Amino acid sequence: MIADSELELVPESIADHPAVVNYARRRGKKPEEVILEGSYHHSALRKLEDGERRGRPDIVHICLLNALESIANKEGKLRVYVHTRNDEVIYVKPETRLPRNYNRFLGLMESLFKNGVVPKDLALLRIEEKTLNELVEEIAPDEVFVMHEEGELIKPRDFGRVLAELENPLVIIGGFPHGDFRSKVEGRKVSLYREPLMAWTIVNEVLVNFESAIGV
Amino acid sequence: MIADSELELVPESIADHPAVVNYARRRGKKPEEVILEGSYHHSALRKLEDGERRGRPDIVHICLLNALESIANKEGKLRVYVHTRNDEVIYVKPETRLPRNYNRFLGLMESLFKNGVVPKDLALLRIEEKTLNELVEEIAPDEVFVMHEEGELIKPRDFGRVLAELENPLVIIGGFPHGDFRSKVEGRKVSLYREPLMAWTIVNEVLVNFESAIGV
Repeated sequence: MIADSELELVPESIADHPAVVNYARRRGKKPEEVILEGSYHHSALRKLEDGERRGRPDIVHICLLNALESIANKEGKLRVYVHTRNDEVIYVKPETRLPRNYNRFLGLMESLFKNGVVPKDLALLRIEEKTLNELVEEIAPDEVFVMHEEGELIKPRDFGRVLAELENPLVIIGGFPHGDFRSKVEGRKVSLYREPLMAWTIVNEVLVNFESAIGV
Repeated sequence: MIADSELELVPESIADHPAVVNYARRRGKKPEEVILEGSYHHSALRKLEDGERRGRPDIVHICLLNALESIANKEGKLRVYVHTRNDEVIYVKPETRLPRNYNRFLGLMESLFKNGVVPKDLALLRIEEKTLNELVEEIAPDEVFVMHEEGELIKPRDFGRVLAELENPLVIIGGFPHGDFRSKVEGRKVSLYREPLMAWTIVNEVLVNFESAIGV
């Protein structure tokens, strides 16, 4: 699970900011219908609480491309969830083929926030209001691991083996650029490296070492 | 090495196509100064030879983000090269922090094609005219592996161990969406899975299993 992801529509408080208004107009959308994007809305973000970490749909995009195209997913061994800073959860069907192009991905997310599901017929992606803890309860894992800079240092290969021995482990990875989880997350805190890693690097380390441990 | 990558400036023959002209104008550049991008220049691509596979800088972007942020790279165990369909080679310094935003990445590539190096002072990225085989000769690896759908099937974990036993192995991964290498590539053909994998999935499998094998 990618948790506390910095994926959200433009908040109302900055919907009239010129950087947002111009961007939305260029894309033929209303300001409150576009996804907040730190690179494009940089000056507007400065007016927001936590502005220095918000507007990072790119992190979700790269994590999902890596997860969905992984061997673990092709083997049917993976379920992916994206939890957002505003306590929404995106359910991603394993067969989803996400747009590789980032701008198309943003368009897809905008459509998802607007319609609740995309595409309407296949419902590959579905979004619901839900907290991280409600989602954890729903998944009912036999163990929860929280990837955390200050967690117990475990070599990635050994962590893959730990996961492989469980029936239904849940790994929680922060979908934000830096700082700590906003949600109260309970579980065994684990760190895979002595330095902070990008969210997508952790996705890769966890999935590939899990695959190795189960022998695919 | 990412080889035969579909990364190039807009070819002259379609520089006057409306899809390209409008896109370049929106970005404040000349048509022949922008990177060919399949999602944006789709109708123009149909007029090009190999049009159905060209214009995929997104593949290079995702492969590089995964490689540069990998533990292998942080441990100083990796050198990354991008070879393009037009026989250019991009040298990437290990400490490079690539733009996460795709459009900024495209801007960086445009600047690289224009100036030969970016940024001017640090020269983190440098581009030179060079064929794949000239680059292989320059790297002088002790063994060359070509990741190929029809190669010998080796489990990713075992392949990581093979790499770990060598001094200076070279892994060649195709930077195109489908089909075969355009360059004549010599080396041991290897396949990591019974189905085709995306280029960035192969990057992840190779690097993470190599890390595991060397015990980091």
